[in-house]
Amino acid sequence: MIDQILIEQAHQRVAPHIHNTPILTNSHINNLLGAEVFFKCENFQKTGSFKARGAINSVLQLSDEQKKKGVATHSSGNHGQALAWAAKMAGVAAYIVMPENAPKVKVAAVKEYGAEVIFCKSTLEARETTLEKVMTEKGCTFIPPYNFDNTICGQATCATEVFEDLQNLDFLLTPVGGGGLLSGSALSGKYFSPTTKVIGCEPELANDAYASFHSGELQPAKEPITIADGLRTSLGDINFGYIRKHVDDILLCSEEEIMNAQKLIWQRMKIIIEPSSAVPLACLLKHKTHFAKAKIAVIISGGNVDLG
Amino acid sequence: MIDQILIEQAHQRVAPHIHNTPILTNSHINNLLGAEVFFKCENFQKTGSFKARGAINSVLQLSDEQKKKGVATHSSGNHGQALAWAAKMAGVAAYIVMPENAPKVKVAAVKEYGAEVIFCKSTLEARETTLEKVMTEKGCTFIPPYNFDNTICGQATCATEVFEDLQNLDFLLTPVGGGGLLSGSALSGKYFSPTTKVIGCEPELANDAYASFHSGELQPAKEPITIADGLRTSLGDINFGYIRKHVDDILLCSEEEIMNAQKLIWQRMKIIIEPSSAVPLACLLKHKTHFAKAKIAVIISGGNVDLG
Repeated sequence: MIDQILIEQAHQRVAPHIHNTPILTNSHINNLLGAEVFFKCENFQKTGSFKARGAINSVLQLSDEQKKKGVATHSSGNHGQALAWAAKMAGVAAYIVMPENAPKVKVAAVKEYGAEVIFCKSTLEARETTLEKVMTEKGCTFIPPYNFDNTICGQATCATEVFEDLQNLDFLLTPVGGGGLLSGSALSGKYFSPTTKVIGCEPELANDAYASFHSGELQPAKEPITIADGLRTSLGDINFGYIRKHVDDILLCSEEEIMNAQKLIWQRMKIIIEPSSAVPLACLLKHKTHFAKAKIAVIISGGNVDLG
Repeated sequence: MIDQILIEQAHQRVAPHIHNTPILTNSHINNLLGAEVFFKCENFQKTGSFKARGAINSVLQLSDEQKKKGVATHSSGNHGQALAWAAKMAGVAAYIVMPENAPKVKVAAVKEYGAEVIFCKSTLEARETTLEKVMTEKGCTFIPPYNFDNTICGQATCATEVFEDLQNLDFLLTPVGGGGLLSGSALSGKYFSPTTKVIGCEPELANDAYASFHSGELQPAKEPITIADGLRTSLGDINFGYIRKHVDDILLCSEEEIMNAQKLIWQRMKIIIEPSSAVPLACLLKHKTHFAKAKIAVIISGGNVDLG
């Protein structure tokens, strides 16, 4: 169980390494919604997403013995970059298993942080088998992307910063994929801003968190094909445990609503966000009447898009 | 002559209406340059560019009689949007002459602020004739985009904010088109940070400020075709007067260097900037050895690109 002290310790641990990212507002979006929205910009975070928080929090808690042997994960996305960066910060070797068809820009980013990239076929099975093999060979430690308390505590520090800066928030909205950010945010909310309702936002095409939350049973994702590529993963069981207890609602939106919300943020806020980060604003616009006149924080989860 | 008091008064006048925009840094770019660079993000300014400062400073100084009759300008770019916004803030009518082929998104933005758009052919002559006609009909006041002391004082407030936040800057770099931002920044530097060298940055394909600065005589622009569309205008004579006296140097860069610098900022800083705003970074990268280990501020002038 993650208690308040664990989150406070995580915050002290990660703060020297990460950015306390800026919170931006936009009067056009406020007018559209008839509400006051504060965007916590984790697209400006180290490695371009909130994943840097969980990765550094996990790596810094390894034993000296573990540090000598390095860390590993499989990832085609933000967690791979985040772990490569965190390992570099801690002077630890990192092995990142990536599918052969991973975007070149993501492979290059991982390598730039000095991590070793091991390619495999793009199936989940191949990724897991290859990771097992690397771990056996190197004796290194697996750092999970979301289904792990140290990762969750790291992600929780983002909402902690939001609650330090903004009082009397009615709502905090985050995207939900594996559930690391949402479960961490809900725990932060419980301890640091108990009157704030924490809401997860998910694409209709990847609605496993929605289905799990409303049925009370963990439901697997069914090959989601949403453009919000960061949210295609299935909810973790540890994450679901926290989400079921501490999250107030999960909302859905369509692909078209995600694209419109992303375009709105690019055009009006002049910031680059990935599709996953547009999901909360898409849900706000869809359920506008529910949020009228409210004071709302939204976590912009990342900005890693291939600008080709 | 613009003295220190005029700039301080302009800052007090505009501050309640504009954003004191954030200053961002990026460790990757610092490493590339071997220097410390601070980006003042006017792409986050009201209307998406620094032009909001000059426009509101000019509009707020109109007489009551002038306010009753409204303001006008011709613009296919940021000044049109800025003036439409400033007029709305001051409760004044605005008439913006725009070429028929102006991007729809810019026309829509001007209209959204409640200004009246008057279309004309896309030649400079047609724009000036149409503006004259509007002014005669409406009795309204022309607010120039750069060649005007009230506009220059407004643009100067951006550098004023930079100097409030950052001490001991070795350099301040801005793009230069008509010269409103550069002349204002140089005047701010003279009064608020006299040891900082102020440098203008210009595309090789639109090198009229460079040619004017180095010859000591105002040189007209020769149909510049640079992608930095905000910098195609010719330097104003009033601006040139200040630039000749108070600017330390003007640097040039190629189209390819502008595109590379723009991509670097989009990818690494996750902010949307227009090509003109990439010109200072392009010049820094080109003249890297000259800036080694320096503490440098760069004004990101705007973020209005058609994302179509």
